[in-house]
Amino acid sequence: MKLSDRAINIQASPIRKLMPFANEAKKKGIHIYHLNIGQPDIETPKEMLDVYKNFEEKVLAYGPSQGLECYRKNLVNYYRKHNIELDIDDIIVTTAGSEAIVFALLTACNEDDEVIVPEPFYTNYNGFATMTGVKIVPLTTYAEDGFALPSNEKIRALINSKTKAIMLCNPGNPTGAVYPKEDIQRIADIAIENDLFVISDEVYREFVYDGLSHTSILDIEGMEDLAIMVDSISKRYSACGARIGCLISRNKNFITSTIKFAQARLCPPTIDQLAANAAIDIEEEYFKKIISEYDNRRNLVFEELQKIEDVICIKPKGAFYIIAKLPIDDAEHFAKWMLEEFSYENETVMFAPAQGFYATPELGKNEIRIAYILNKNDLKKAMKIFRKGLEKYKGLK
Amino acid sequence: MKLSDRAINIQASPIRKLMPFANEAKKKGIHIYHLNIGQPDIETPKEMLDVYKNFEEKVLAYGPSQGLECYRKNLVNYYRKHNIELDIDDIIVTTAGSEAIVFALLTACNEDDEVIVPEPFYTNYNGFATMTGVKIVPLTTYAEDGFALPSNEKIRALINSKTKAIMLCNPGNPTGAVYPKEDIQRIADIAIENDLFVISDEVYREFVYDGLSHTSILDIEGMEDLAIMVDSISKRYSACGARIGCLISRNKNFITSTIKFAQARLCPPTIDQLAANAAIDIEEEYFKKIISEYDNRRNLVFEELQKIEDVICIKPKGAFYIIAKLPIDDAEHFAKWMLEEFSYENETVMFAPAQGFYATPELGKNEIRIAYILNKNDLKKAMKIFRKGLEKYKGLK
Repeated sequence: MKLSDRAINIQASPIRKLMPFANEAKKKGIHIYHLNIGQPDIETPKEMLDVYKNFEEKVLAYGPSQGLECYRKNLVNYYRKHNIELDIDDIIVTTAGSEAIVFALLTACNEDDEVIVPEPFYTNYNGFATMTGVKIVPLTTYAEDGFALPSNEKIRALINSKTKAIMLCNPGNPTGAVYPKEDIQRIADIAIENDLFVISDEVYREFVYDGLSHTSILDIEGMEDLAIMVDSISKRYSACGARIGCLISRNKNFITSTIKFAQARLCPPTIDQLAANAAIDIEEEYFKKIISEYDNRRNLVFEELQKIEDVICIKPKGAFYIIAKLPIDDAEHFAKWMLEEFSYENETVMFAPAQGFYATPELGKNEIRIAYILNKNDLKKAMKIFRKGLEKYKGLK
Repeated sequence: MKLSDRAINIQASPIRKLMPFANEAKKKGIHIYHLNIGQPDIETPKEMLDVYKNFEEKVLAYGPSQGLECYRKNLVNYYRKHNIELDIDDIIVTTAGSEAIVFALLTACNEDDEVIVPEPFYTNYNGFATMTGVKIVPLTTYAEDGFALPSNEKIRALINSKTKAIMLCNPGNPTGAVYPKEDIQRIADIAIENDLFVISDEVYREFVYDGLSHTSILDIEGMEDLAIMVDSISKRYSACGARIGCLISRNKNFITSTIKFAQARLCPPTIDQLAANAAIDIEEEYFKKIISEYDNRRNLVFEELQKIEDVICIKPKGAFYIIAKLPIDDAEHFAKWMLEEFSYENETVMFAPAQGFYATPELGKNEIRIAYILNKNDLKKAMKIFRKGLEKYKGLK
């Protein structure tokens, strides 16, 4: 029996597809600095891990489809701290941000409907689009201007009768771009004028540097019916393995319909929700320390990149990624070469070729994404090896 | 902005939609025996709960998209005990059985393709079908003959060029039916002759009574490329809140494609997988005790139903559900009435109207599903109240 077209056509993870080469390198005894994935090395807060240790129920039971009430209540407190007033029923707890995006697409779009997404974008949006039969229409942004949002004209030119939503990632993975309030307002204005949902993926909302503040789509007046926010605890609390996220909207119809999708899969994991719940009461000090740690890492990686000739890279303002345009033709080939043929003092570096983050063919071929998720010592060594590798690779051509 | 058609059309859970009436009854101080949902009262094994207590990692990290290797290895051992030989790479760990079914449908079917499903069926299949754009074609089975599989002619009559799979639940939720090996072989023969996948939901595979043995779709020779099995730990270890299941197939292309969907959502919850892993080594004694407990409950509920005039019900052979055809017109109205207007010594009973388990309109209107997931004392009381309620309700008409 033939598999479905969508199973054949769905994009293989461009981040994970280099793993076999990494495994081969490891077998040869080469140590790899992993700058390719968004798995932070930061410790998960003790308050969360204690919840697992202290779970005393005798039966590990289903929770409500919309999420545990205690957790949704506490999420209201979390967003209040960030000046976002919500009702507990505006929130659906999901199995990580991934499920929230799938639910948002299912509720906003029919099959073959279109969603406008600034590219480069989080590569798994492609998978979610395939799963839901939605077409992603890319809105190209450029390394040269820090991946800023294009003009209203460029955005409007992509809207047609099939367009149902604009989907943003802010702060951006893989770009590190943080959209200023004016840009979020521009998007909102265009959404209102064309009656489009805005699905705003804000899983990096706390990770903003240089004293900037983050603008949520939920902050914008007049967007009550159109704003859909996606969030996750994975990066905020370095708890990627808990798989807890949420979908938020003040549009009651949207939530009521989305709950029906949530009911079909019964509920998100129970103890992990309790752990997420405990995380909300962690003191501000925790974040200040972490944000400052990432800020230092960002500065380090950026400075190291600046030392390399012909690398184009504007300093990112948020998240923990940086995209660099390299003076080579094929970043994927380079990434493979770094794993298969290069090492320096028995070590090498793995990063993500950026082409997989673009929907427009051929774009991003000479770009890479670096995730600065290692401590500064390791990052420093990794960036040195990266530079040495790039120099040697250029010499080969 | 209008919501998507699928968001508007997706079935609301027929099990959960009576909850507001139950909540009102509780507010009035009425105690409700919940026979409406499949949440067992059995304690989760200590071996599993200890894993949460003893988790010592500092970072709650992502696992592999296909599931933790240690767990997949141990699953091979589990199935070997049940005489099913698998390779570790035949298994994808999923976020509960729900996600496994969604993945199976996505990989087997394009949008608008058809899947034949014996009805009554697990109601959330409707939700999964809506999410994936697949059409469920019901194959009606009947209370009068214990929901046995219909003849080959009836099955073949439903097959057309859009048909991509037959989906079974064995043992059956909501029917309690256990298909004998001949029937699984019949389905396999039809699948091979028509080149169809068989998606076999076997989450109740251990719950089989009367000395019967369970036949997995993976047991049938010649089905290597067509057999897709869905499993879950939710019921087996009374760990519904862990959200761990799996999808199994010996068809390498099927697995390779499904992994791409799995990569899009990154991974299932990490600690919950470790807990599931610990469960596999639980001694056989544990199951013997539990199966015998459910067996006793089944006997009790069945005997109590037999005492009621004009109730049609064949003793089920597996899972922990029983469908009863009642001498009334509208079981949903009766279920609501039991919550809103009836009580006996300040107690009442909640069960699931069965119409929501049928895809053919009007079928199952006078049927209910009882989940025997309470201890025998409570079950005994609940069935007495049920009988008294039904008698009174009939008198009103």
